[in-house]
Amino acid sequence: MGRVTERRRVIRIRDGVATARPDTLVAEEPLEIRLNGKPLAITMRTPGDDFALAAGFLVSEGVLGSAEELANIVYCAGATEDGRNTYNVVDVRLAPGVPVPDITLERNVYTTSSCGLCGKASLDAVRTTARWPVTDGPSPLRLAPELLAELPGRLREAQRVFDRTGGLHAAALFSPEGELLDAREDVGRHNAVDKLVGRALQQGLLPLSGTVLVVSGRASFELAQKAVMAGIPVLAAVSAPSSLAVDLATETGMTLVGFLRGASMNVYAGEERIALG
Amino acid sequence: MGRVTERRRVIRIRDGVATARPDTLVAEEPLEIRLNGKPLAITMRTPGDDFALAAGFLVSEGVLGSAEELANIVYCAGATEDGRNTYNVVDVRLAPGVPVPDITLERNVYTTSSCGLCGKASLDAVRTTARWPVTDGPSPLRLAPELLAELPGRLREAQRVFDRTGGLHAAALFSPEGELLDAREDVGRHNAVDKLVGRALQQGLLPLSGTVLVVSGRASFELAQKAVMAGIPVLAAVSAPSSLAVDLATETGMTLVGFLRGASMNVYAGEERIALG
Repeated sequence: MGRVTERRRVIRIRDGVATARPDTLVAEEPLEIRLNGKPLAITMRTPGDDFALAAGFLVSEGVLGSAEELANIVYCAGATEDGRNTYNVVDVRLAPGVPVPDITLERNVYTTSSCGLCGKASLDAVRTTARWPVTDGPSPLRLAPELLAELPGRLREAQRVFDRTGGLHAAALFSPEGELLDAREDVGRHNAVDKLVGRALQQGLLPLSGTVLVVSGRASFELAQKAVMAGIPVLAAVSAPSSLAVDLATETGMTLVGFLRGASMNVYAGEERIALG
Repeated sequence: MGRVTERRRVIRIRDGVATARPDTLVAEEPLEIRLNGKPLAITMRTPGDDFALAAGFLVSEGVLGSAEELANIVYCAGATEDGRNTYNVVDVRLAPGVPVPDITLERNVYTTSSCGLCGKASLDAVRTTARWPVTDGPSPLRLAPELLAELPGRLREAQRVFDRTGGLHAAALFSPEGELLDAREDVGRHNAVDKLVGRALQQGLLPLSGTVLVVSGRASFELAQKAVMAGIPVLAAVSAPSSLAVDLATETGMTLVGFLRGASMNVYAGEERIALG
């Protein structure tokens, strides 16, 4: 069974002085995701939360929308040469009657678009695949910048492994009051979000109306897509967003915050959810 | 034709004061790579150097090893609804007689492994696909830590776009004397390395014996794999490596340096190429 960290020997050089010692590294292993027995995707991930990762990946791809559509998830008997189970192959079985989509091995839903490949086609593909709009929940969301400013710190506090390895991306879900709902880590930033979303699916919490997703790095199109597919109304990133992430947020009505650092932040879309002074 | 940056309106919040202004973002667009007309992969990338990106991707996959194996690369007539070429689809045509491999849409060579999916299988797949060992060049490489310490600064100087958007990953090749040979940027870190390697292939420089690859972020298995496939003997990352990246470096004889910051660095593999005091 996989571990979140592994130990390796390292030579540390500090101001010209070299010392050999053991070091803690983030573990990385391949995970093959199968759908009803058929290989669908391989991702390099940090072992752990593998069923949630697989479920969340399938939410992002538009295959799963609720726990009822999921029959079960099992580890396949993928074995090494000496016969040990690798725990690196999971099979997701859909409930009877749930359509098995004809999706390719590609990670990206925009491959289903028929128009010439462009950013616009990528946006259209998300819009036509999404099961629900991003929504505020029972009452309109209106977040104070002071509250947003505190979330990266709470995310870091929740990170159990980051401080030891420096190699993990983190993602966390917060309530409108800034309460930490869940946090996940992975060597791949998209995996950390898939693990969060997959856990929410397993707990019957989709769509994630009224929540705030905070990620430790940048906001790419892929991360924005995952937030939209889970129905999350606010995505906040510690670092920069890309042009296409901003366009997707604008088109779907999601609030996108970037460069969230202390009392400073940039709002790229959906400013109506931020309580500006 | 794609642009490296795009402008979007942003609301900046600084200490409670909000101001609206235009902001510069890193551009992100999908690129479909075809091989002899057949769709092979889609990657989200920053437009520019697309032919180099496609060529480098195929070096990483073990399809291309020299410029002679490449007939040409062209933009396909992928058009938007209003008929404009998107410049987001490239077709790589192999020279006559070069075998077209039966590779899947997956980005990762380890999918060709027949053994149970595990880290070991991933390592084996790189070793059996690599066209050449990582080599020092005419004389044994022996790099002073003081020289390595200067490379991240030189990489940042070479980054034309980073300071404006904060959203680009960078990768650069250096000579054993620390001279900058080439630098590329992209919204995806693997794309930046593919662009570097593809340019080297086009210029007849593969394998990249005796060079040092410096990357702005972390060293994942995928980045280590790309370095090995290009024959690069030293990979240095500003941030943390993963366990599998270290294992691949150890197994292939590549030097792997992480946390390269000022006079501090960690050597995870191939320490014989570092001139320790």
